[in-house]
Amino acid sequence: MSKSNLINNSTKNKSGDHPELKEPVSLKKSVSPIVGIIMGSDSDLPIMKEAARVLNEFEISYEVKIVSAHRTPVEMVEYSQTAQSRGIKVIISGAGGSAHLPGMVASMTSIPVIGVPINNSTNPLNGIDSLYSIIQMPPGIPVATVAINGAKNAGILACSILSISQPYLQRKMNQFKEKMKEDLKLKNAKLEEVGLDKYLKGLQKAQSRR
Amino acid sequence: MSKSNLINNSTKNKSGDHPELKEPVSLKKSVSPIVGIIMGSDSDLPIMKEAARVLNEFEISYEVKIVSAHRTPVEMVEYSQTAQSRGIKVIISGAGGSAHLPGMVASMTSIPVIGVPINNSTNPLNGIDSLYSIIQMPPGIPVATVAINGAKNAGILACSILSISQPYLQRKMNQFKEKMKEDLKLKNAKLEEVGLDKYLKGLQKAQSRR
Amino acid sequence: MSKSNLINNSTKNKSGDHPELKEPVSLKKSVSPIVGIIMGSDSDLPIMKEAARVLNEFEISYEVKIVSAHRTPVEMVEYSQTAQSRGIKVIISGAGGSAHLPGMVASMTSIPVIGVPINNSTNPLNGIDSLYSIIQMPPGIPVATVAINGAKNAGILACSILSISQPYLQRKMNQFKEKMKEDLKLKNAKLEEVGLDKYLKGLQKAQSRR
Amino acid sequence: MSKSNLINNSTKNKSGDHPELKEPVSLKKSVSPIVGIIMGSDSDLPIMKEAARVLNEFEISYEVKIVSAHRTPVEMVEYSQTAQSRGIKVIISGAGGSAHLPGMVASMTSIPVIGVPINNSTNPLNGIDSLYSIIQMPPGIPVATVAINGAKNAGILACSILSISQPYLQRKMNQFKEKMKEDLKLKNAKLEEVGLDKYLKGLQKAQSRR
Amino acid sequence: MSKSNLINNSTKNKSGDHPELKEPVSLKKSVSPIVGIIMGSDSDLPIMKEAARVLNEFEISYEVKIVSAHRTPVEMVEYSQTAQSRGIKVIISGAGGSAHLPGMVASMTSIPVIGVPINNSTNPLNGIDSLYSIIQMPPGIPVATVAINGAKNAGILACSILSISQPYLQRKMNQFKEKMKEDLKLKNAKLEEVGLDKYLKGLQKAQSRR
Amino acid sequence: MSKSNLINNSTKNKSGDHPELKEPVSLKKSVSPIVGIIMGSDSDLPIMKEAARVLNEFEISYEVKIVSAHRTPVEMVEYSQTAQSRGIKVIISGAGGSAHLPGMVASMTSIPVIGVPINNSTNPLNGIDSLYSIIQMPPGIPVATVAINGAKNAGILACSILSISQPYLQRKMNQFKEKMKEDLKLKNAKLEEVGLDKYLKGLQKAQSRR
Amino acid sequence: MSKSNLINNSTKNKSGDHPELKEPVSLKKSVSPIVGIIMGSDSDLPIMKEAARVLNEFEISYEVKIVSAHRTPVEMVEYSQTAQSRGIKVIISGAGGSAHLPGMVASMTSIPVIGVPINNSTNPLNGIDSLYSIIQMPPGIPVATVAINGAKNAGILACSILSISQPYLQRKMNQFKEKMKEDLKLKNAKLEEVGLDKYLKGLQKAQSRR
Amino acid sequence: MSKSNLINNSTKNKSGDHPELKEPVSLKKSVSPIVGIIMGSDSDLPIMKEAARVLNEFEISYEVKIVSAHRTPVEMVEYSQTAQSRGIKVIISGAGGSAHLPGMVASMTSIPVIGVPINNSTNPLNGIDSLYSIIQMPPGIPVATVAINGAKNAGILACSILSISQPYLQRKMNQFKEKMKEDLKLKNAKLEEVGLDKYLKGLQKAQSRR
Repeated sequence: MSKSNLINNSTKNKSGDHPELKEPVSLKKSVSPIVGIIMGSDSDLPIMKEAARVLNEFEISYEVKIVSAHRTPVEMVEYSQTAQSRGIKVIISGAGGSAHLPGMVASMTSIPVIGVPINNSTNPLNGIDSLYSIIQMPPGIPVATVAINGAKNAGILACSILSISQPYLQRKMNQFKEKMKEDLKLKNAKLEEVGLDKYLKGLQKAQSRR
Repeated sequence: MSKSNLINNSTKNKSGDHPELKEPVSLKKSVSPIVGIIMGSDSDLPIMKEAARVLNEFEISYEVKIVSAHRTPVEMVEYSQTAQSRGIKVIISGAGGSAHLPGMVASMTSIPVIGVPINNSTNPLNGIDSLYSIIQMPPGIPVATVAINGAKNAGILACSILSISQPYLQRKMNQFKEKMKEDLKLKNAKLEEVGLDKYLKGLQKAQSRR
Repeated sequence: MSKSNLINNSTKNKSGDHPELKEPVSLKKSVSPIVGIIMGSDSDLPIMKEAARVLNEFEISYEVKIVSAHRTPVEMVEYSQTAQSRGIKVIISGAGGSAHLPGMVASMTSIPVIGVPINNSTNPLNGIDSLYSIIQMPPGIPVATVAINGAKNAGILACSILSISQPYLQRKMNQFKEKMKEDLKLKNAKLEEVGLDKYLKGLQKAQSRR
Repeated sequence: MSKSNLINNSTKNKSGDHPELKEPVSLKKSVSPIVGIIMGSDSDLPIMKEAARVLNEFEISYEVKIVSAHRTPVEMVEYSQTAQSRGIKVIISGAGGSAHLPGMVASMTSIPVIGVPINNSTNPLNGIDSLYSIIQMPPGIPVATVAINGAKNAGILACSILSISQPYLQRKMNQFKEKMKEDLKLKNAKLEEVGLDKYLKGLQKAQSRR
Repeated sequence: MSKSNLINNSTKNKSGDHPELKEPVSLKKSVSPIVGIIMGSDSDLPIMKEAARVLNEFEISYEVKIVSAHRTPVEMVEYSQTAQSRGIKVIISGAGGSAHLPGMVASMTSIPVIGVPINNSTNPLNGIDSLYSIIQMPPGIPVATVAINGAKNAGILACSILSISQPYLQRKMNQFKEKMKEDLKLKNAKLEEVGLDKYLKGLQKAQSRR
Repeated sequence: MSKSNLINNSTKNKSGDHPELKEPVSLKKSVSPIVGIIMGSDSDLPIMKEAARVLNEFEISYEVKIVSAHRTPVEMVEYSQTAQSRGIKVIISGAGGSAHLPGMVASMTSIPVIGVPINNSTNPLNGIDSLYSIIQMPPGIPVATVAINGAKNAGILACSILSISQPYLQRKMNQFKEKMKEDLKLKNAKLEEVGLDKYLKGLQKAQSRR
Repeated sequence: MSKSNLINNSTKNKSGDHPELKEPVSLKKSVSPIVGIIMGSDSDLPIMKEAARVLNEFEISYEVKIVSAHRTPVEMVEYSQTAQSRGIKVIISGAGGSAHLPGMVASMTSIPVIGVPINNSTNPLNGIDSLYSIIQMPPGIPVATVAINGAKNAGILACSILSISQPYLQRKMNQFKEKMKEDLKLKNAKLEEVGLDKYLKGLQKAQSRR
Repeated sequence: MSKSNLINNSTKNKSGDHPELKEPVSLKKSVSPIVGIIMGSDSDLPIMKEAARVLNEFEISYEVKIVSAHRTPVEMVEYSQTAQSRGIKVIISGAGGSAHLPGMVASMTSIPVIGVPINNSTNPLNGIDSLYSIIQMPPGIPVATVAINGAKNAGILACSILSISQPYLQRKMNQFKEKMKEDLKLKNAKLEEVGLDKYLKGLQKAQSRR
């Protein structure tokens, strides 16, 4: 694959200037995807959309699909076996409960698979079942696992992996880290200025607005 | 498969008189199996052989295979999709660590799948990872899970399931339960006779002989 | 029991055409039951009704009873010892807390017992107590355990067990699996069509309507 | 029951002078027992013998029986229903794994039942399964649970319960507590005298002699 | 203490006819108590009141006090050392978090101490901290532990312990068990009569009225 | 450092008379701080403010800063390395999730670091991740860890540590303990006076007012 | 770094023919490393050497260093900040106990960091502390976590990540997967040939030889 | 307290030159102790001696006593109430199982109490019971908790606390940290020099010599 299409130039989100990280971004499926975001159920979408959002910010093309290890095993096999030849470089896979999807996909491809243990409010085991199921892979078949519900970090990890051969992305990664640092400095400055009492009231107001 | 070979008459263990439950039994693979015993690694065999031993006792034919969800996913798909047509009635699947095998097989067959979480001495999570991974299946795809390392009970459960349509097996199940009861009565009689001190010494001797 | 009444023809739910899986079904107790659904308390009913709903869908007759291992131990003994002779082929038993019911019933019958660990919102141990109590049975007395609150899967597992000797049920099992697959394909098609943003909004709307 | 046989005078261990707590005591089964010590398997005896040892020290008569909730459920029912009329005042019940015995016995008698979760070296769940199964009883049926493998404390708790109506036992309880205190004072005196270095060497020697 | 005041005749709740178990009962502190109900904080009262309610039903006199091992350690020592001489026969102690109260009290008295691990909604460890802290007592000092938030069972266990020397209480215990059985039979009869659908609707209505 | 500025005399909270412990106190940042309160995110402030509140009560000057081990690692290094020379005597550090802040700060200073594991409502691991991450430090680098969300106790521990060389603070510590004891005595007196029923109603009212 | 030395041609292990996976390989430190293997203590080396072994097999150059987050924090900062400019493409970091190293390194570089939770036999928390500490990173700073003690998979994951831009490595990855499959087929063939009894004896012999 | 006796000049370990950290040090009890090391049982000594060893190294006088919260509660009260007036500045308390000692002592003194959860090989709960029991103290009574079996860090934390008012100890703390850093640098130099293979062999030899 040439550099020119590693970062897909036709993505609609691309623009001349860097998009603000906190701005609402359009999460439409991109063409010519290089990252595959899959999950076992559409109930995982509200969590997994965070991975898509990050890829949008980094202007990396991706696809989103619901692929169930248990309800559509044959489709999962096909997805796993053809992903690399279709141009997918990294797969991000979310799964809850007996979370077999990330490990099964990893067993049928040699591109990196990032696993996201999904926890929802009705799971009595708090996602620990999914965490164990995804991470405890046998020697030979790794899954790069992130925190429970850590879809945002899955997206960032995918960018980090892709950035190895893309100086363009390395710069974006550094900007991203810089921005986090600046956000924190602004908060400290405000805390210093208004004092603890007022800052806490501001937090409460912000929370109640949500 | 016709009823006549549900209980395979050609099994080498079969004999006129009922084999003693505690006697060492030959664990050779039987012909025309109706139970499939599969596991992810041959390191699971020392645990999983207990399922085979029970089926031997109940004179039920079975096959034993190493089928890894992660190292041989395509073979696993084939095994799962053809088991029923090959005459398999129940699948017993052991797996350790991420333990995807039982659930994946269950997703591709409609015969009952019994899952055995395997714990070995080097697993820091004590088999809880395997237990959660096997049992927390999503609605639609059940795995009949037994205790961690509970391969013997997996074998008995398979017999119980098969006994629904086999009066022959129901009698064997009842004899099996009766024998457990008699064993305990003998122990109580001995405890009553020799007293707690001597009984404990006898236990210690038996243990040191192993 | 003859094949003809394995699937009870007089069940009121039966009709010429196959009932839709998602349609509201009547959960009335059937006559001449072949599956026994029992639980330790009527507070378990909102969970355990899912097992009944599945059996309705598969047109398998069942009975529902509250049988407490601790409050009505003698009634539990009687239920366990007579179930097989009354024509029950499989018992589904739900229980919460110190969930002794499934194992105790299994100790007094040789038909398969499926255990459902029940978790309710007031249990500080999240149903792990029930899971351990049901699944860690000693060698000799298995309970086929499903996920915490996995009553739907308990119903499906009962169908799977019964289908071994019922080609009729095997076809239904396959249709059931096919339907799950089709549902997922429709969702993927919609996701492809409307994009991630609109799909998520649709999910939110559906959730707020509940 | 009259006072005279609450503390059984015919027990062989009884003697004019108080037996030393650390001396090896004979653990023979006593006649006319007022405490029942039961357990699910004779493999629990090496743990449960500590309860018997304590009762010997307090010169309280007891019986020891192997009663399995799962292998001999009918015998368990009979034991539970007749214990009180046979003169048993307290039941101490040990159980491992699913550990249903203490709770089931408690459901069929109104005398106090003390539960001892048993952990052995082969249980991957470390006895937490037994602890949860014994202690999480539903409202109405308590089991007085002690620590995992806490059979000695189960014996002491039985004495404490019996001492409510037996001034004789209250004095023994107080002597027992006094002795523990004196033992510790002697250790502190020795530690003060020889210093930390020598004391640690003494501990190591004592341990290597075992 | 003589038998005559073991069951305190002057308690205000006493009346000629047996009070209904489910009726709202007055929870006033009784005079001449034989059971001490203590807890570390008044925030434990909404849980611990269930123990008092049971003792009211069984017409056993009790006292309720807030005794904190950590905030009022000296008062705790005094309470523990004087309880027996004041006529207390059984102590019920609830405690949350680092629940030291039950074990500390047990170290300073020889009467039975029942421990209730308290969990409230803000404890991130779900009361497992309290359970472990209360039950894992060292050899020599037992605490009779009940389920997390199991204050009702603590009350019943106290009755069971007291009933050893009180035939009056034994009869009440048997009536209590009989009542639980009858309640369940009525529920089963209703379930049989109205069917699963209507029964579930009745449950929902009852719940929404609360 | 001289005694005179150990307790900073210029703090705005200081007044002639001792402020009531329960009174709303102003939580403004003090000048010339001797305690550093840091945390990884401003979302930890609603928990960590309790530490500040305690220090206000004890009239100890402090500073509050948001210092993220992961987002501002270089700033964290600088903070840790300069704290002691700026006059900070004790650092209180809260952190949630992969809570690296307290241990990292402790690795770069020799003044005592108190760690507060933070749990918020969205953490599926209930703060156990933070607890383990903070407390399991390797030999050589201790963190004085308090309970999950135990910021108030972190503040008191800081006072206790500072009081070693400050008789002034020792008196305040003793007053603080005395006040806790008195509060409990008042509650017991009220409970004795109004009875359990009325006391519970009072609790409910107080709770609903919040 | 140019492509030509991404796969370092001067590594001593390189040879014309592919080295056997199971053969003892030399684990010498390579020149011009592109993977950094770091760990908090040399006691982690027996686990972490597996990552080095895999990289040897794939002929990828690496460096091995002991970098402690707690004992050498400044060196850790320097290592993290300079790794990328020194040509390191992926960092593999093992850590036990509080396990801050992987996350801290990840906070100071934008190349992918793979975390290996290390468990040794003396850790009472079985490595769960390390797993939680490594994986539960806050949004913005991902660590690609593998199984507890999963150093071999960390090595394979590094290869998989590097293979994205290296067709050479993709072929090796495929060969590696193929080899695992072939190994399993050979085992199945042997199991089929010799039967379960003999196979188990062979396993025991192999184990006792170790 | 004057500087002159904060660091006890009469301690036998004191010498003109700084004692090497790794040298075998005499662990004799010091006179005029300023740190109290207490534990619930002499079986905790092999763990707790590490705290004493650190204090020896830092030439801080200490006392070692066995004080059981449960077997000698009255002695514990006395110890706690008199420690401060006897000149003790910090208390280090180890405890296993229910582990009430640290919290109880903290409730009766205002000097800092450091808690060490003790795990021994026979505890099925791995010391998690002790950790929870020690750390989850209620608001008002903190215990500065260190890692399970973290007695060495308890000693270092005590030094860190004492160093606040002792410049002498601050220098020692810094030397101690420096030494840890140097040790690691030496190891890295050796690893660089001999390579991974030889280094691992050296580790194995060192381990087998123990």
